[in-house]
Amino acid sequence: MAAVRRKVMEVLNGSTVSPPPIWLMRQAGRYLPEYRKTRAEAGSFLDLCYSPDLATEVTLQPIRRYGFDAAILFSDILVIPDALNRNVHFVEGSGPRMDPIDEAGIAALSAEGVQEHLRPVIQTVGQIRASLPAETTLLGFCGAPWTVATYMIAGHGTPDQAPGRLFGYRHRKAFDKLLSLLAELSADYLVAQIDAGADAVQIFDSWAGVLGEAEFEAFAVEPVARVIRSVKSRRPQAKVIAFAKGAGMNLKNYRQRTGADMIGLDWSVPLSFAAELQKDGPVQGNLDPMRVVAGGEALDDGIDRILSVLGNGPLVFNLGHGITPDAKPEHVSQLVQRVRG
Amino acid sequence: MAAVRRKVMEVLNGSTVSPPPIWLMRQAGRYLPEYRKTRAEAGSFLDLCYSPDLATEVTLQPIRRYGFDAAILFSDILVIPDALNRNVHFVEGSGPRMDPIDEAGIAALSAEGVQEHLRPVIQTVGQIRASLPAETTLLGFCGAPWTVATYMIAGHGTPDQAPGRLFGYRHRKAFDKLLSLLAELSADYLVAQIDAGADAVQIFDSWAGVLGEAEFEAFAVEPVARVIRSVKSRRPQAKVIAFAKGAGMNLKNYRQRTGADMIGLDWSVPLSFAAELQKDGPVQGNLDPMRVVAGGEALDDGIDRILSVLGNGPLVFNLGHGITPDAKPEHVSQLVQRVRG
Repeated sequence: MAAVRRKVMEVLNGSTVSPPPIWLMRQAGRYLPEYRKTRAEAGSFLDLCYSPDLATEVTLQPIRRYGFDAAILFSDILVIPDALNRNVHFVEGSGPRMDPIDEAGIAALSAEGVQEHLRPVIQTVGQIRASLPAETTLLGFCGAPWTVATYMIAGHGTPDQAPGRLFGYRHRKAFDKLLSLLAELSADYLVAQIDAGADAVQIFDSWAGVLGEAEFEAFAVEPVARVIRSVKSRRPQAKVIAFAKGAGMNLKNYRQRTGADMIGLDWSVPLSFAAELQKDGPVQGNLDPMRVVAGGEALDDGIDRILSVLGNGPLVFNLGHGITPDAKPEHVSQLVQRVRG
Repeated sequence: MAAVRRKVMEVLNGSTVSPPPIWLMRQAGRYLPEYRKTRAEAGSFLDLCYSPDLATEVTLQPIRRYGFDAAILFSDILVIPDALNRNVHFVEGSGPRMDPIDEAGIAALSAEGVQEHLRPVIQTVGQIRASLPAETTLLGFCGAPWTVATYMIAGHGTPDQAPGRLFGYRHRKAFDKLLSLLAELSADYLVAQIDAGADAVQIFDSWAGVLGEAEFEAFAVEPVARVIRSVKSRRPQAKVIAFAKGAGMNLKNYRQRTGADMIGLDWSVPLSFAAELQKDGPVQGNLDPMRVVAGGEALDDGIDRILSVLGNGPLVFNLGHGITPDAKPEHVSQLVQRVRG
């Protein structure tokens, strides 16, 4: 019997796979009618994240429909603040909310009970692995400490996470403590996901792009490096994808500085720069999600450009950010078919 | 009598001025109590923009208080859509709104009456020049076609101007027509500002950072280049600053590609990259506005880093984006004093 190939893992190990494997950030999401149906049955958004049966179901839906090369655990980057009792909730149409935290609040944070609170998510990972085709890579994930911290400080999303940046300037010690705690909790959480059956994990630093050079190093690079070091010291075979959205120029040496095996690229990263980054190892990305909404030639052109520049090196094809609710399911079919040639 | 030195103009002409001249984007703004007082007298925000006496007054307020090396016309990048009858209005706390435009709406747009509608702004430029100290550079400005177009398409601001990106993919011809019209109107508007007494003009491309490589070239570089070519063909001595916020890597050769004399840098641009860009000509920026809110050491450190890397070349000291309403006026004093040494 031939060994089962998990193509995303082959790329993570440095191989060029042709055509490249493909999955899409937020592939289990509102653009799929079957997702919307399950979502409606689930109560709150966090109820869905903490229900292993329903979270497994929505994770598998896009695999059944499109046969993506990777499934990604259905969860949210804010389950860690939720486990820290920050009163996380999701307001329809306006994003996540939680109680904003201050210096005293940070001093009072405790890691106790956090991994226990996240156990349903870990159970989900096991259930997904049990139901997933053998050739499909299973990805776990968490938010990067900086990104998670910005939501904890502001209590919600903002245009450029100014409250988090300001807090970092004003209360550097408390902020470093928060980032350290989040790094430690994230590493434990990722190790648990790996032990439950995740083949690899992705760290989402969605707000890396709002940082100046020095803060990028201190708040984005160093905490992610700490997470990866901690995970790899305990699970030396673990593979990690780091996605620092909007990091632009700061992506130079980001792989080396964080210890990530593969780096994710958002759609604003010029392909010439992406090709340079690919010389040092595998990259993932970076189609503009709006091309999947547009469909037609705009979609084909975007795919072809990426394949022509990055297709002959180690690449996992993906979007440059999450797929949006207005993406048409048939455009996703067009995308998958064109990438697979 | 010694010739009057306008230091910002000296830098725009390629000279290194030490210490560097300084002004702040949005320096006439809500952080100043005297601005809030005038604003309260003005009726709507657009009423303030179209009242030469009041707009002159708020333009001069920060010059009186801090003696900045440049004054910038008080106006808004959305006066052109307003002049195009798009029903522009400003909703307190939630930003600008207008009627979203579609293909038919674009086909129906007419340049007729636009410059007439903008005449009060041009009158303001003349009044400011008449009241300004002789050594203070007067800057005019407009929004870049891409940025203005994204508001016209969406009808409001969004986290990443997805509606504008999508429209560009779906209706490329109509979108190119819109960008061309905006470029033409912007050039005429800037020429009128220069004729009324503006020493130089800045083009604000606040949403340049959400574009992929090919679209950056087509939607951000080419229309701005068209504006600059048109201005310079008619006013060969005119100096132009181009500020493409979030453009990151795409800033490479942006000066050469657009024909700008100076390029503005947002606070996420690494200083090492800024230094490379400065080898080709003057740069402006790039302190994180949150450092001005924070004050203290965070402010001093940010200033010192910029001065140490960029201070020995042609630099206009500025923020990396507009000053925010929560900035303390005394922190602005601290900033000006430290830059001036």
